[in-house]
Amino acid sequence: MNFDFSPKVQELQARLTDFMNEVVYPNEKAYKEQLDQQETRWSDIPPVMEEMKKKAKEAGLWNLFLPESDHGAGLSNLEYAPLCEIMGRSFIAPEVFNCNAPDTGNMEVLVRYGKEEHKEKWLKPLLEGEIRSAFCMTEPDVASSDATNIQAEIRRDGDEYVINGRKWWSSGAGDPRCKILIVMGKTDPSAARHEQQSMILVPMDTPGVNVLRMLPVFGYDDAPHGHAEIEFKDVRVPASNILWGEGKGFAIAQGRLGPGRIHHCMRTIGAAERAFELMVKRAKERVAFGKTIGEQGVVREAIANSRIEIEQARLLTLKAAYMMDTVGNKVAKKEIAMIKVVAPQMALNVIDRAIQVHGGAGVSEDFPLAYQYAGIRTLRLADGPDEVHRESIAKLELRNY
Amino acid sequence: MNFDFSPKVQELQARLTDFMNEVVYPNEKAYKEQLDQQETRWSDIPPVMEEMKKKAKEAGLWNLFLPESDHGAGLSNLEYAPLCEIMGRSFIAPEVFNCNAPDTGNMEVLVRYGKEEHKEKWLKPLLEGEIRSAFCMTEPDVASSDATNIQAEIRRDGDEYVINGRKWWSSGAGDPRCKILIVMGKTDPSAARHEQQSMILVPMDTPGVNVLRMLPVFGYDDAPHGHAEIEFKDVRVPASNILWGEGKGFAIAQGRLGPGRIHHCMRTIGAAERAFELMVKRAKERVAFGKTIGEQGVVREAIANSRIEIEQARLLTLKAAYMMDTVGNKVAKKEIAMIKVVAPQMALNVIDRAIQVHGGAGVSEDFPLAYQYAGIRTLRLADGPDEVHRESIAKLELRNY
Amino acid sequence: MNFDFSPKVQELQARLTDFMNEVVYPNEKAYKEQLDQQETRWSDIPPVMEEMKKKAKEAGLWNLFLPESDHGAGLSNLEYAPLCEIMGRSFIAPEVFNCNAPDTGNMEVLVRYGKEEHKEKWLKPLLEGEIRSAFCMTEPDVASSDATNIQAEIRRDGDEYVINGRKWWSSGAGDPRCKILIVMGKTDPSAARHEQQSMILVPMDTPGVNVLRMLPVFGYDDAPHGHAEIEFKDVRVPASNILWGEGKGFAIAQGRLGPGRIHHCMRTIGAAERAFELMVKRAKERVAFGKTIGEQGVVREAIANSRIEIEQARLLTLKAAYMMDTVGNKVAKKEIAMIKVVAPQMALNVIDRAIQVHGGAGVSEDFPLAYQYAGIRTLRLADGPDEVHRESIAKLELRNY
Amino acid sequence: MNFDFSPKVQELQARLTDFMNEVVYPNEKAYKEQLDQQETRWSDIPPVMEEMKKKAKEAGLWNLFLPESDHGAGLSNLEYAPLCEIMGRSFIAPEVFNCNAPDTGNMEVLVRYGKEEHKEKWLKPLLEGEIRSAFCMTEPDVASSDATNIQAEIRRDGDEYVINGRKWWSSGAGDPRCKILIVMGKTDPSAARHEQQSMILVPMDTPGVNVLRMLPVFGYDDAPHGHAEIEFKDVRVPASNILWGEGKGFAIAQGRLGPGRIHHCMRTIGAAERAFELMVKRAKERVAFGKTIGEQGVVREAIANSRIEIEQARLLTLKAAYMMDTVGNKVAKKEIAMIKVVAPQMALNVIDRAIQVHGGAGVSEDFPLAYQYAGIRTLRLADGPDEVHRESIAKLELRNY
Repeated sequence: MNFDFSPKVQELQARLTDFMNEVVYPNEKAYKEQLDQQETRWSDIPPVMEEMKKKAKEAGLWNLFLPESDHGAGLSNLEYAPLCEIMGRSFIAPEVFNCNAPDTGNMEVLVRYGKEEHKEKWLKPLLEGEIRSAFCMTEPDVASSDATNIQAEIRRDGDEYVINGRKWWSSGAGDPRCKILIVMGKTDPSAARHEQQSMILVPMDTPGVNVLRMLPVFGYDDAPHGHAEIEFKDVRVPASNILWGEGKGFAIAQGRLGPGRIHHCMRTIGAAERAFELMVKRAKERVAFGKTIGEQGVVREAIANSRIEIEQARLLTLKAAYMMDTVGNKVAKKEIAMIKVVAPQMALNVIDRAIQVHGGAGVSEDFPLAYQYAGIRTLRLADGPDEVHRESIAKLELRNY
Repeated sequence: MNFDFSPKVQELQARLTDFMNEVVYPNEKAYKEQLDQQETRWSDIPPVMEEMKKKAKEAGLWNLFLPESDHGAGLSNLEYAPLCEIMGRSFIAPEVFNCNAPDTGNMEVLVRYGKEEHKEKWLKPLLEGEIRSAFCMTEPDVASSDATNIQAEIRRDGDEYVINGRKWWSSGAGDPRCKILIVMGKTDPSAARHEQQSMILVPMDTPGVNVLRMLPVFGYDDAPHGHAEIEFKDVRVPASNILWGEGKGFAIAQGRLGPGRIHHCMRTIGAAERAFELMVKRAKERVAFGKTIGEQGVVREAIANSRIEIEQARLLTLKAAYMMDTVGNKVAKKEIAMIKVVAPQMALNVIDRAIQVHGGAGVSEDFPLAYQYAGIRTLRLADGPDEVHRESIAKLELRNY
Repeated sequence: MNFDFSPKVQELQARLTDFMNEVVYPNEKAYKEQLDQQETRWSDIPPVMEEMKKKAKEAGLWNLFLPESDHGAGLSNLEYAPLCEIMGRSFIAPEVFNCNAPDTGNMEVLVRYGKEEHKEKWLKPLLEGEIRSAFCMTEPDVASSDATNIQAEIRRDGDEYVINGRKWWSSGAGDPRCKILIVMGKTDPSAARHEQQSMILVPMDTPGVNVLRMLPVFGYDDAPHGHAEIEFKDVRVPASNILWGEGKGFAIAQGRLGPGRIHHCMRTIGAAERAFELMVKRAKERVAFGKTIGEQGVVREAIANSRIEIEQARLLTLKAAYMMDTVGNKVAKKEIAMIKVVAPQMALNVIDRAIQVHGGAGVSEDFPLAYQYAGIRTLRLADGPDEVHRESIAKLELRNY
Repeated sequence: MNFDFSPKVQELQARLTDFMNEVVYPNEKAYKEQLDQQETRWSDIPPVMEEMKKKAKEAGLWNLFLPESDHGAGLSNLEYAPLCEIMGRSFIAPEVFNCNAPDTGNMEVLVRYGKEEHKEKWLKPLLEGEIRSAFCMTEPDVASSDATNIQAEIRRDGDEYVINGRKWWSSGAGDPRCKILIVMGKTDPSAARHEQQSMILVPMDTPGVNVLRMLPVFGYDDAPHGHAEIEFKDVRVPASNILWGEGKGFAIAQGRLGPGRIHHCMRTIGAAERAFELMVKRAKERVAFGKTIGEQGVVREAIANSRIEIEQARLLTLKAAYMMDTVGNKVAKKEIAMIKVVAPQMALNVIDRAIQVHGGAGVSEDFPLAYQYAGIRTLRLADGPDEVHRESIAKLELRNY
């Protein structure tokens, strides 16, 4: 039980922090401006992004995720955690390092369950950052936290599967570079509860894949990646596109979501840390009623409570990562559920306090706070709402006696 | 001490509710669509708005605010409260009934402190709903909750005043119909703390009034009204445009903000009530893990707590209104501060729970929840942040012993 | 909808407050000392109590509860509320005015459901303050919030009923003057869910009534009244002792608990108000780090939030009382449930903050705070835990759609 | 950064847990009963305590605290933490293992600052568990969180010091075995802010040491140790009794309180863990409305949130201990302040939920919950109130920019 990071991790932390300071933060504004200056916010990727990616690749800060794989940097979850946190500090950073959702989760699925042809065709360009992907699970018409509610149909027809259904919150599907979708649907509604679902690869340009609209989050469109509502209408793909096998969809989802969830939490802690820094700086600068805001007791209380909450969430996330590394994602289920509940709520608390300290500026575009808030608010819903994760924790605890 | 509304109020409640059901709610979507179909979201007002306003005027549901004035409907604050609440249920409703901020507050200022020429030129068309106005107090560079921080300068020069400064969060200034600004600035920085400031009328088209940008709120532009950042550069207006007199700016602000704050609170309660209804309906419809969400204990807890919080905030708001009517805004200062703290936080709690029950739909455009959240979040900052109001309450309590 | 108290109520408030100042507060310490000086804390009632009761009776401040009855003062619930609140400020006051639990609730039961002989024998001396009573519903072995769990048996045997079972939290049963128990048990376990239970009068001195122990609340024995665990072993009473009739126990409990709950809430608000006053006074007196505690932002925040919470809880309680008066306890069910949840939690918040401001003194006997906290903590459990009341509120709301 | 305990610690955890199960828990009731059966609760120590101490000593589970000293078990803070947590599960356990407050802190002071004669006379029997001690810092008349407020006087007079003043919350001073007091007072009120205070050894039987009363915590007397209010009236001790030197009182307090605070936090986590276990067990046993309480969503939520909060507080405490071991108590100041704020509030949350799940039983003597609550509530005040520690955290954070 010690709390230090290894020299390897410390060295990567330092290099990553330098890169953020020198390359990423200074380009946040340029990225936004280039996006706004395009014909539409969806038509292309701001050029500065590809420039930054190139630099990150050259610096060896690329694909740092992917534990237990020869494709990544060979880092354990515990080693990756503090690095992922640093990336979470900027809304553009994860993509710069090719560590952004949902691509990381999708790459993990392809590494584990993809056939060689899939890896060649989709995993390789994803690892190179040439294309992007989306994950189509949630449906608009049902409570999708209960996988048995899923209505999308994946029907075998000769050498093909035919897909019909409607998905939404397919994040990244608005990106012009998005080429491949992983779609969850039911191959056998009469099978056992968790063997009805399958996952299948659907190229974005397959006939019948119709993007209906891009969903806003609060007032943000999250362009150019976005969150798509997609109709699948008699979409046909080769039978070999099924992942692992029929009925394995739920199992893949469980495996995929563990790392995906903890990555979200790590990034969320980074976002909270940045909001915290902004709050402290602002508190030192602004003056009201004869003293700086930072000299007022209630602001100091906000600062203290924020530091306490961040630190606790970070430690719990590190412990969950450690358990994933040592006893596996399955045994670490409770810890993953715990950080899934803790990290987003913690960050929302911290960001909300930071907004309050910033006054009107806090809800505007002049600081990243409101945008962070909106994005992280969705994490209390995505990959299972808080309520479902608390339920899992309670179930495991009640089983102990 | 009784809790019934008078027959007059009950009759107005019923008529207003009918009007909301028949005219307002059904047109919410049309309003949005018309706005999006315009050349820009700022270029014009969706035609459906003027149609609705005409109907409201015909129905006698017009200018229901304005207590103690022969311009309004002759309603007391306590009588107006439940009506204002109903209007707060829809983001387009207040304007339909000509009861929207900041125009109501500005009209009150004109009624009380405007000269006859001002009333003729600005108050009359405002009361008719022909033009709109903005209120320019908050500044980007200083903590504006402390009025002594204000930097805008209003300098006498012969028969004119010359205004220099920068304001932001001037809500409504993006509206093409916005014709008049009430601007707060310092006429005498060397005067006593609360006699340095003055308020002055500045026609929107005065040379030197430059709208720099419209500020987003959590990604929403709030078009076509918006929140403007405005530069005042050597802006000259006749000396008679000063309101009440030099050094009266703080006093006017105090008088203006009392009713303005309580109107915000009333509308906020209406918004919370609507979010609550959406939550309960959704809870009855969605099914997860074999039962409706509304059968799950934690959702029921969310419903119960929301009802409790709404009801308490409503009663406190009514009491504050009653005190404003009976002992005056000044004596009711503590109660106004209390609801200013209570109502927005209560509504944010309720809306946040409603979002959670709606899943991804809750943060999207399919329900008004995320938009409500963003708008109401600003009310914890506007007209004085929570911290300042709590401070006022504490000061008054500590004085008692 | 107005918020003033009638002149009659205002006059009673004034007289009651005077009486508290002149008689009750000054004797709190004497009461405690006399209790400690007795042979045991259970052997007798401190003489000062009877002296104060005599004065209260002479002052006409006696039996102010009991709406709709010619036994009481003819006050409605709304009229009684602010008076009951004043009594709640001192732990000894309710008894002084013969308005203490559980006697008020028991007297209401006797007024409504007692036979003439019962009224003569038990109600009359209770109204005179000569004897005391207890209410035996909760059982140690089951979750008693679910009335169908009740295990005590009331079996008809000729002209008698035979009672067997075990009860606890029979408050007041330790009082040497306690002469009569109202006992709830099952006469017919096979009847419909809410018709299995009956209530019956059991004189304290009936053979087979064995007080096993007095239960402490957070270390306090609440002597001389106390909370008893009582064994009923083949206890025989005349068949006429049944109240209303067999199978009416649940209905009586519902009727009894409405007023009982709101009285608790009113007193709780009074207790919170007193804790608040102590907090504010202390904040003005104590100095730390160069200023009074009351000049520190976080303490001011505690004061402001406490005032806000008290005021809201009070208004909701008044509204519930008004509804009980105008539409009846049954229709007011939701409002009663709401205040049952709100008032104790509000008071615990306020008292906890007051304790914090008092430092170590706050948890000691030097201030009433810790004792208040302990007593009010039980109100989140007594007469149905918070969870059950939230459940009722949610059920009623979900029914609306 | 790993999260495992060393084999040595794991072995001690196992042995300690066995000892708790076999010796401590089974004797909790006997301890209470023996205490009640004595002439007074203060007259003697329940014999079962000495029996348990003897067994613990024989088992080598003795004086496990005291890092960096040849008197203790040679455990680091990080190693001691999980063991101290186990002891915190039972209110009698810390004394059984000679690891109870305030003796551990006092022994540390004697090890570091005591002269040889002091060690021989006081430290040795303390380490043997033959005598007990108290720490006299807090005063009734001033806010003692500000050390400059201290009024007790330590005046040099020839070869002696003369002490005058009044202290309270001198825990353990009621114990008949308490032989030595460490008293803080001012030797030089005109010195620099933190050099006015000194600490001095005062044998309990010195003339002029008058125990005025034992303070209750909520309604608990905490006999036989208790919390004393002590008057020091012209108390004379040899000049050599001064610890370290004049003006060193504040420095010693700072050094003493670091370990003392973290020990409290560790024990508090153990108490919370036990309350949690009781809650989960109860939730599985009790049935209401047709299902166990543990099947109800709100109880499951309480369980999940409790597990989350406990785990986070534990990790933060471990990190603080690790920092104390590696960078020293001074650099770990922020982390110590953080756990001082976190652990008690966390435990109060957990215990309060456990009380709620237990119904009336929860506030009674049948479970340790109410007693735990009362004791831990004092930890939000003792050794500096939450507010002071939050202030320290904020100050350190604001310094970073």
